This record gives sequence, structure tokens and C-alpha cells, in this order.
Amino acid sequence: MIRIGIVGYGNLGKSCQKLVEKTEDMKLVGIFSRREIKKDGFYKIENIEKFKDDIDVLILCGSSDKDIRVQAPLLIKNFNTVDSFDTHKNIPSYEEKMGKIAEENDKIAIISTGWDPGLFSIIRTYSEAILEEGKTYTFWGKGISQGHYAAVRNIEGIKDASQYTIPKEEFIKKIKNGENSEFSPEAAHIREVFAVAEEGYDKKELEEKIKSIPNYFDKYHTIVHFISQEELNKNHKGMPHGGKVIRVGQSPNQNQSTIELSLSLENNPDFTAAVNIAYARAAYNLKKENKKGAFTVIDIAPKYLLKETRQELIKKFI
Amino acid sequence: MIRIGIVGYGNLGKSCQKLVEKTEDMKLVGIFSRREIKKDGFYKIENIEKFKDDIDVLILCGSSDKDIRVQAPLLIKNFNTVDSFDTHKNIPSYEEKMGKIAEENDKIAIISTGWDPGLFSIIRTYSEAILEEGKTYTFWGKGISQGHYAAVRNIEGIKDASQYTIPKEEFIKKIKNGENSEFSPEAAHIREVFAVAEEGYDKKELEEKIKSIPNYFDKYHTIVHFISQEELNKNHKGMPHGGKVIRVGQSPNQNQSTIELSLSLENNPDFTAAVNIAYARAAYNLKKENKKGAFTVIDIAPKYLLKETRQELIKKFI
Repeated sequence: MIRIGIVGYGNLGKSCQKLVEKTEDMKLVGIFSRREIKKDGFYKIENIEKFKDDIDVLILCGSSDKDIRVQAPLLIKNFNTVDSFDTHKNIPSYEEKMGKIAEENDKIAIISTGWDPGLFSIIRTYSEAILEEGKTYTFWGKGISQGHYAAVRNIEGIKDASQYTIPKEEFIKKIKNGENSEFSPEAAHIREVFAVAEEGYDKKELEEKIKSIPNYFDKYHTIVHFISQEELNKNHKGMPHGGKVIRVGQSPNQNQSTIELSLSLENNPDFTAAVNIAYARAAYNLKKENKKGAFTVIDIAPKYLLKETRQELIKKFI
Repeated sequence: MIRIGIVGYGNLGKSCQKLVEKTEDMKLVGIFSRREIKKDGFYKIENIEKFKDDIDVLILCGSSDKDIRVQAPLLIKNFNTVDSFDTHKNIPSYEEKMGKIAEENDKIAIISTGWDPGLFSIIRTYSEAILEEGKTYTFWGKGISQGHYAAVRNIEGIKDASQYTIPKEEFIKKIKNGENSEFSPEAAHIREVFAVAEEGYDKKELEEKIKSIPNYFDKYHTIVHFISQEELNKNHKGMPHGGKVIRVGQSPNQNQSTIELSLSLENNPDFTAAVNIAYARAAYNLKKENKKGAFTVIDIAPKYLLKETRQELIKKFI
């Protein structure tokens, strides 16, 4: 049994908890939070060091910049860790820092798992390795964006809202036809807003206000629907997400090849948790081979993610 | 420069040749064939041992059962090899055999690369690692099948033909909707035949004959079109192929996640060659780390497939 600890108890922490409890080769030792949660199996983060001999892998479920960036370099001294650190521009320096401390302390840190970074990083790597000449496009959605939701909610007269980012079908069609389209998030996505208006406000004016929010909406094709609070609660309060990585490449004979990975997720944190847990198993398996240091998803062979023996995996998957 | 040798000069060998010549970090040392080809850089396979110090990796481009199964266990004594051995049921025993000889001779054998086995094996492995509960479906096509083409050609009155295997859209829609469909090749694919009839034969009768060929067509929904030789030559003599791997999984909270990889290839051998070449680079990189033995695609971390340093890859892809 792989003994797992969870740090942070937001959406991702809760998804990890459910999944670890259901995973045959894992056992949940404790959930560590800054808050005091008076239930069995919950501990304050200050007391985590006492568990250093009882936990094989810690899954870090906090936010990248506020939590993981601060906690991980301390925790890695006593624990093997898996995280979904996702501030793309800071990943190289974070990797370097974690690698150094992990090596000194003979620990394993698997960083930036999840779906982007994570599964999408893997697909971008394989696709470009195979189709050296070509172009890779990453699309997000259809999915909920918290930042955009908050920007809409800030408008006076808006009672509640949800916002979806959606890849443009016509843009995808073009690139698959081999047309060399210049990618920008604005050219490749539309934004759809479902909003509830307060009484006494003009919906046309509210719509214009939403569409002109700088950066979030002003450069996008944005569609706004006004609906009732009831309908919003019923149909638009989930956490769906997804996306696509598409690489269109040319062989030396000028034949086109297209590799496309699509993700469609009814619940974003549940899927991120599932990736975290597969990599927690990888951390455990790498440790058994006496490895140490920082690893990203491109450093780890697929076989480490599963509980079956290599022979069983070859038979089942190759 | 990675020094490459190619064994076999059919469609795949030719695609590999073109691609190696275009690949910056590779150099083509020679092409080895059973036939005598009187051109610079071509050699008879009997003379290959002389090149053992001049070649870093040999790419084996023959057929699985007639060529690779026989040649590879001999060649691995003197060379690192990459192949696309694709007889699924024999892969475990082939892997074991190659592993033993490769270890004894301090060589690396990367077996069963390409797209299925190969890229599809990788995706099946990742998908099941992430979505432990769920079901994986593999679809082939739209693409040309040589075996089916030959079966149609054997009918008296058929002058020429092409056959496409095509995944059924409605079946794919069903499984994405989470309906638990029982997969069988017949339920999940249709077959489309483009045929040229000899003069004086009844097309209705020919169509019936095609549709009733045992195993190849009788259990499938088959569509037959009679066209002119001219049209067949113009539109149906390419080597397109492709396919899909779809995993539909459920999280512990009963949310559905779908991972889908789609390939669309204008030229099947060109793409298989591209995968072979990426793994030839992996063989070279593994050798530099003093590894030995047999490797499948699930044993190799993505970073080994590219020429950039690990730091560059993290910056670019994560």
C-alpha cells in the first residue's frame, strides 16, 4: 500500500481524498490544512513533520503561487511530493529549486502534473518529437474560468454569472485543413457568459459593459445570455473543462499528419486529482529504484504510473 | 550526429530514408536490402556486419513476421535497433527474446514503435493510469487496408479496387455519451469499397459477392461504389490512415472524463517512419546513459525522443 498525505483541502484536495480512498493500492494517512478541521484524519499543517515516517508521498493541493511555491521547498526536506504547480513561466526556476533540495534530502519531487501543465505537456512533447516540422496549437474549453466569472460579477447590476471559454470550431477546421493560421487566444476562442441581472438594470447596457471589460472580454467574440438565478444554479454551476492539443505536421514528402488530443471533463478538479494520483504512484515506484531529485512529466516513462508489472502492461497496452 | 542504418527498402524504408536525410542531427550511413540495388549507399544485407562500428542505430523496416522476427535477433548482437514489430499477440515473447540478447551484447532494442503499436499504446497506458475506472476503445481509419483490397481483387470481374475502413460516427457518439457499448470491430466500423468492374459483368452481382466475403466483409456494414479506373487512380491510390483511442472514465464522484487521441495521416508509412526516427534518437540517448536491453514505448520517458536539452524541453513543453 502506498501511504498518501494530502496538503490543502479546497476543491482539488477534496477530489484527491475521494479518489485515494477508492484506489486499491493506496491508503490515506492524513489531510493537512492551515485551518483546524475537527474530524478524524485531519491535522494542522504545522504538525506534518511528525508524519514523516508514515507517508510515502504527499500530494500538494494548494494554489501555485500562494501555497505550493512556499510550502513545497520546505516539505520536500521530509517528504516525496507531487504537485500541479501551474504558473508556466515560473516552472523552470521552481524545478531547479525543488531538484536541488530533493537531491540533498534524497527525496523525489514530481512537479507540474495535472492536465495543462501535465497531460497536455506530454502530448506536445510526443507530437513535436514525431512531427518535427509543423505547428502545435493548444485550445482551452469548453470550460469555466474563475477569473472571468469574477470580472463579470464585479459589474454593478450583475447578481450572478458563469463564463465559458470555448474553442472556435471554424479556427480548428482551418488549421486541420493545413491553413497556416496565426494563433492567438482571441482568434481561437469565444467567450460565452450566462448572467443574472438585478432588477431595474438595463440588460443591453449590462451586456455592453461585460463585452468591454479590458483583457478579459474586449478583444474576444463574446456572447451574453441573461437567464434566471434558478436556471444558472441548475445548469451553470458545475466545474466542466477540457481542451485540445493539435499538431499539424508535414512529412518530407509533403504529406500532412495531424495528431489531436481532446479532453472533455465534467469536473476539472476530479480529473486533475486523477493525474496527481497516477504520478503519486510514479513517485513511489521511482523511490523504490532509489531515484532522487525533481521530475516533470516528460522525465517519467509511462510504465511508472500503473500498479501492474511491466510484463502485464506490455501484454495489455502495446 | 546520430549515424543511422536502414534495413529493408519497401514503403517504410523509403519514408525513413527521406526523413533521415532531412533530420538535422542524423546522418544516413546505408540502406541494407536482400535485393541488390546498384546505387550509392545501398548494400546487400549479408554485408551489414562490416558496418557495426559505423552505425549508432539500425531501423528495421521489413515485415513483422517474415523479416523482423528473423533478422532482429541476429542484428541486435552487433547493432542497437528500432523496429515497428506489430503482431500484437507475439510482442511479449519477442520482447523477452530481444531483451535477453540485447543485454548479453550490451545493446539497445526498441521494439514495436509506430502508431499501433506505438503512439496508441502510449495513449492507452496514460489514459488508463489516469482514469482507472472506465473503458478504452481503439478505432482504425479512415484508412486503406491491404488485406481487404486483395480480397476484393480476387473476385472474378473486378479489375481493380480500394477499400477503406471507417469508424462509425454514431458508435463514437454513443460511447462519448457514456453509453456502455459493447465494442467489436464490426459494430464500430464500416467498410467502403471503390471498385472498377470488368466489362460484361453485372455490378449488382459483383456487389453481392464483395459483401459476402467471409470475415473481411460479411459481418460489416459495407458500402460498394463502382467507379472508373481513371477515378480510382486519381482519388483512391494514396496511403491514408488514421484512428482514434478513446477512454471514457468515471471519477469517484460520478463525473465523466473523456480522453481522445485522433490521428489523421495522408500517408501511413511516412508517419510510421517519423515515429521510428524519434525512437532511434531515444535509442542513441539511452545508449549514452549506458542502458541496455529491450525497451517498449512505455519504458521510455518522452524527453529521450528530442534533441533539445532537458532544460530546453521543460521551458518549451511543460
